[in-house]
Amino acid sequence: MSKIKKRNVIVGQSGGPTAAINSSLAGVFRTAKDRGYAKVYGMIHGIQGFMEGRYVDLSEHIQTGLDAELLKRTPSAYLGSCRYKLPNINEDKELYEKIFKMLDELEIDCFIYIGGNDSMDTIKKLSDYAIISGSEIRFVGCPKTIDNDLALTDHTPGYGSAAKYIGTSVKEIIRDGWSLETAHGQVVIVEIMGRNAGWLTGASVLAKSEDCDGPDAIYLPEIPFDVNAFVDKCKELLKTKASIVMCVSEGIRTAEGKYVSEMTEGVEYVDAFGHKQLTGTATYLSTVVAKEIGCKTRAIELSTLQRAASHCASRIDILEAYEVGGAAMKAADEGDSGKMVVFKRLSDDPYQAGTEVKDVHKIANDERLVPREWITKDGTYVTSEFVTYVRPLIQGDVAPIMVDGIPRHLYVKGFQELL
Amino acid sequence: MSKIKKRNVIVGQSGGPTAAINSSLAGVFRTAKDRGYAKVYGMIHGIQGFMEGRYVDLSEHIQTGLDAELLKRTPSAYLGSCRYKLPNINEDKELYEKIFKMLDELEIDCFIYIGGNDSMDTIKKLSDYAIISGSEIRFVGCPKTIDNDLALTDHTPGYGSAAKYIGTSVKEIIRDGWSLETAHGQVVIVEIMGRNAGWLTGASVLAKSEDCDGPDAIYLPEIPFDVNAFVDKCKELLKTKASIVMCVSEGIRTAEGKYVSEMTEGVEYVDAFGHKQLTGTATYLSTVVAKEIGCKTRAIELSTLQRAASHCASRIDILEAYEVGGAAMKAADEGDSGKMVVFKRLSDDPYQAGTEVKDVHKIANDERLVPREWITKDGTYVTSEFVTYVRPLIQGDVAPIMVDGIPRHLYVKGFQELL
Repeated sequence: MSKIKKRNVIVGQSGGPTAAINSSLAGVFRTAKDRGYAKVYGMIHGIQGFMEGRYVDLSEHIQTGLDAELLKRTPSAYLGSCRYKLPNINEDKELYEKIFKMLDELEIDCFIYIGGNDSMDTIKKLSDYAIISGSEIRFVGCPKTIDNDLALTDHTPGYGSAAKYIGTSVKEIIRDGWSLETAHGQVVIVEIMGRNAGWLTGASVLAKSEDCDGPDAIYLPEIPFDVNAFVDKCKELLKTKASIVMCVSEGIRTAEGKYVSEMTEGVEYVDAFGHKQLTGTATYLSTVVAKEIGCKTRAIELSTLQRAASHCASRIDILEAYEVGGAAMKAADEGDSGKMVVFKRLSDDPYQAGTEVKDVHKIANDERLVPREWITKDGTYVTSEFVTYVRPLIQGDVAPIMVDGIPRHLYVKGFQELL
Repeated sequence: MSKIKKRNVIVGQSGGPTAAINSSLAGVFRTAKDRGYAKVYGMIHGIQGFMEGRYVDLSEHIQTGLDAELLKRTPSAYLGSCRYKLPNINEDKELYEKIFKMLDELEIDCFIYIGGNDSMDTIKKLSDYAIISGSEIRFVGCPKTIDNDLALTDHTPGYGSAAKYIGTSVKEIIRDGWSLETAHGQVVIVEIMGRNAGWLTGASVLAKSEDCDGPDAIYLPEIPFDVNAFVDKCKELLKTKASIVMCVSEGIRTAEGKYVSEMTEGVEYVDAFGHKQLTGTATYLSTVVAKEIGCKTRAIELSTLQRAASHCASRIDILEAYEVGGAAMKAADEGDSGKMVVFKRLSDDPYQAGTEVKDVHKIANDERLVPREWITKDGTYVTSEFVTYVRPLIQGDVAPIMVDGIPRHLYVKGFQELL
């Protein structure tokens, strides 16, 4: 794979945004430039936008070191994201021919895709097609998802910052509950993202510390949920505490597989991958608790704040996201294709982790759940093993660059209109 | 009011908590100690708890300078709060006799109450009773409320930190919306606290900056709300933007005075048992928009996070809260009673403000709303005057004291059980 002249790189972002996804973009850009590539293109809205001919020259966006620092602190996918799934090669060969023609026209050597499970499927298919078609373009995936559910990697960039925000916010919510006395008690239900994997909801345990009891119960989607048992648990907890905080995953469902959020009729949205968008789990449960117990209730959805809160990012996470972007670029530069960069944890304390390169065929479309043994026997909390796992990932802060009292993000005039 | 020997002080917290209310508590404590008072007692759950004989010696809680710093960074009312309104003196003279007897037994010279409108009513009544009964105890109020709706003061401690959190979070929510393309657009509706006064909802304008358009529309409770006009505004905005963010006050209501949050007719939002479910303002509006426009919608309630987010506090706010606590203590020490400390703004830029002491009879139970001229003519945004007003109040940060990656709060073992 020795080329005399290095040509160009293209990078895209895919799937749900995180507070760290742009740090990976900055890492890809820096390493591509360091390794002598001429241009680094950014796909607008991932492969979907690229197929429509939408891309930019990233040099116009990252002109200075300050730009790179702002990019690391900018939430949401800077380049725009997509939830597009490529058809199988045999289903639409012409589409692949078109994509590769476009890549060749741009003189692309390396194609880096920052994303989660669905995005790694894109890397798999494109790298497969490169083999079939004899293309020398290398396709490498860079992991990203707040859900932390990618297989084969110790964790995913984006998760640490979301976990830090969740731990911090839940702690503040718990403390807020100490303030007012209520005659019949108060049940606060916090709804946290994570459709099938409980990594984010479990991170609410981080509120637990010398100065805070932590959530009173934690319900992950890995464990079948029983509404009556939940109400009983609230009743039991209210016997000794005036205000309790229950953290639940948006994806909790009964033993029969029915989502709690589906017990309320509301607006249902299904995305391009056929994933149902879930909302209203906490609202539904608070209604049931109010009815069954007659106490004050409050439903709090952390909603998109948990994936966008750059102002509360984890330093480890932002640095690792940058590092993994660089590692993906390095792997592609050195000839890897059909691979994804993963983290291998060497030690919990002191925390040490390194990157490795894995075959993307072993990763794509495979969800990693919280191990059963990291959840308590009764299914209402996570164990100390979970805490040991997540604690290193939230260490350190990234001071926002404040302008007029509000964090500044990277912005290039006119670019928003292209999104 | 010259006493040879200074005796004791008692301080309480009342009403909804803020991120700054404990900084005022720290300020009262420090100034009381500096001015030679023997003991500083803290009422547990305000006047309501005090009447039940519940109080602590604050010296056991603030033992070191570090404790004071932690207290300044602790959300929620440290001492516990209450929403108790004293009866009129002529309605229950015995109650007043009881309270004053308890205060005398504790050898109280100064009674400081940190709170909002209802709390100033408490100061008014107690100071009136002191005059009637010939008591020399001085009663002084220290302003506090995220709602910023207290009369006669330029602003209230707690508002600046909430405003900073709202501006920061709304900016992150807006940026998050840039990420995904949606075929038919996306409407995000952010619900912000403030039942009658729009100071908090208006603060969402702070997201607007060189790198962000800000919210696409802002609806304050001061202006009658029209659901159809809201839907039309969304339609109009979606013509040129893929994702729009609408900020609404929880207290918006129609010209007839009907709260939007009470409007559930015509919209199916029913739980599994067939019971109509209470919805929030944003949830209701997002249901209407989804039905009328057929686009993706998302309702986000900032909920208690906006009053408890100490991790995103404004430095000006925390310092001023501390200062106003000290000023209240100083006023009481120097003989003032039936007074509240207020802020008088001397200059917007550079921002300068000083404290003054005002008669609490002119303040109590009087709500200060956003001036009509600070809201645009069409009632869907705030003007530059609003920005000029709020901008200085969010300046500077208070670095949280991080332990194991999460902000530390003040905690004394066993105290939580007393709350």
